[in-house]
Amino acid sequence: MTGPTDKVDVEAQARRAEEFRSLHRGRILVLPNAWDVPSARVFEDAGFPAVATSSAGVMVSLGHRDGEGIGIQNYVSAVKRIASALSVPLSADVVGGFGDSPSEAASSVKAVITAGAIGINIEDFVHQTKKLLPVRRQVAKLEALVALKDSMKIPFVINARTDALRFGTGDDRAKLEEAITRGRAYRDAGVDCVYPMGLTEPAAISEYVEALSFPVNVMVRVGLPPIGELGRLGVTRVSFGPSASYAAMGLLARASREVLDKGTYQTLLEGAISFDQLNELATKRR
Amino acid sequence: MTGPTDKVDVEAQARRAEEFRSLHRGRILVLPNAWDVPSARVFEDAGFPAVATSSAGVMVSLGHRDGEGIGIQNYVSAVKRIASALSVPLSADVVGGFGDSPSEAASSVKAVITAGAIGINIEDFVHQTKKLLPVRRQVAKLEALVALKDSMKIPFVINARTDALRFGTGDDRAKLEEAITRGRAYRDAGVDCVYPMGLTEPAAISEYVEALSFPVNVMVRVGLPPIGELGRLGVTRVSFGPSASYAAMGLLARASREVLDKGTYQTLLEGAISFDQLNELATKRR
Repeated sequence: MTGPTDKVDVEAQARRAEEFRSLHRGRILVLPNAWDVPSARVFEDAGFPAVATSSAGVMVSLGHRDGEGIGIQNYVSAVKRIASALSVPLSADVVGGFGDSPSEAASSVKAVITAGAIGINIEDFVHQTKKLLPVRRQVAKLEALVALKDSMKIPFVINARTDALRFGTGDDRAKLEEAITRGRAYRDAGVDCVYPMGLTEPAAISEYVEALSFPVNVMVRVGLPPIGELGRLGVTRVSFGPSASYAAMGLLARASREVLDKGTYQTLLEGAISFDQLNELATKRR
Repeated sequence: MTGPTDKVDVEAQARRAEEFRSLHRGRILVLPNAWDVPSARVFEDAGFPAVATSSAGVMVSLGHRDGEGIGIQNYVSAVKRIASALSVPLSADVVGGFGDSPSEAASSVKAVITAGAIGINIEDFVHQTKKLLPVRRQVAKLEALVALKDSMKIPFVINARTDALRFGTGDDRAKLEEAITRGRAYRDAGVDCVYPMGLTEPAAISEYVEALSFPVNVMVRVGLPPIGELGRLGVTRVSFGPSASYAAMGLLARASREVLDKGTYQTLLEGAISFDQLNELATKRR
């Protein structure tokens, strides 16, 4: 666990944060979300210029449901393990900041950045109630993070997620408008990117990007247009969300059915990596 | 971490150990090895009557190469997370026992059983040197574990692995004979099952089983006959080893190539589980 005595190499972290920040300019950034060390390292080996955590993936992997129940200390330890094994920048999801107040959120983000991340995602709803936080309260949290960026002298990338499309009130149109209103408020609070969870329709994506004139993050899910089209729609970054975990668990379920029903191992063996390759994924690339 | 003050529910653990033990009688036992909580829970949901850890899978997942470098405390914490999320019995690999002496091995196994496992695998080689331990030293370790089983009053299943087929001396024939000699010595030390790593050829499996007249464990790998044939060859149990990790990492590599080369997400989305399904895998089945 990253403790208060942990020292950050501010210059190295600042350089890495700038490296990650620069990936948000130019070509669309495709950001794969990992759940543990080897899943992150596979993404790095595949050629992604940066990697993110999936909070749901990390938490479930460690026996906690998505949310803040894992506790900030366990979560930061996981971020530190992953960051320590990567040579590319790591962005970490911090759920709602592990706390209600701006100062708690800032303290959580500080721990995550100290652990090696150089970007964060933060949500605007409460997991237990599935209710959106009032915009002003979320803006206060975001302002605390912007201030933290200055005080740490590490220009980490703040990706402000809104769940208005899921937990807003009214019909789809009203929810999209709420997501736009929140996106603008978060943008004006000084974040670097806005992430409307659940935005998949090309027309809605286009409207959202135009309404904000600001970097927008979308997540891979059924119905999301291919990367090329997302680029044409003006999307700045597309992240996997927990889909790598969903895919891996689906694979294990299929492999199990094959073994139990047919007594064969094709799903387990086909396209698998080797023992030596797995072992190499435990630590930094040589 | 399981500490010296942790109390074991001896009766419940003994019942669970008996449950696992009984699976070694009758039909061949297929034992899937997991690397974390959700991978273990997927196997339970699929209908496997017990689950095992893959030490390589668990360790790499947490940023450590296969071996004892992770440290017994971190490893036991991982075993505890997995055991706590399962309703079926869990068997845990303990590498070489996390220590050279019989008393160190017994202390490590005690911690793993206290953490919730009711079976263990133990190896007879040293990871750093890839050298087999002298048979007498391994037998002394195994005898200490048999004594522990009695003193804990928990009849956990001891699966004694030999790496003679990999690290023995001489040609393949000499290595097989060394594996048989070791298997007999471990059997006579009072273990419950013998696990000759790398045994895949039907003729060699048959010879091994006949030479020992004792429960034998084989591992899934390319070339292993299907479960039905293994049953006919007299194999008592077949385990996945780290193959679920190999398969999952292979899948992520393929999904990465598809996203980076084609900009599409079919490998990520096809056959994937949902967010709610992933979340359910964090904790015990309801």
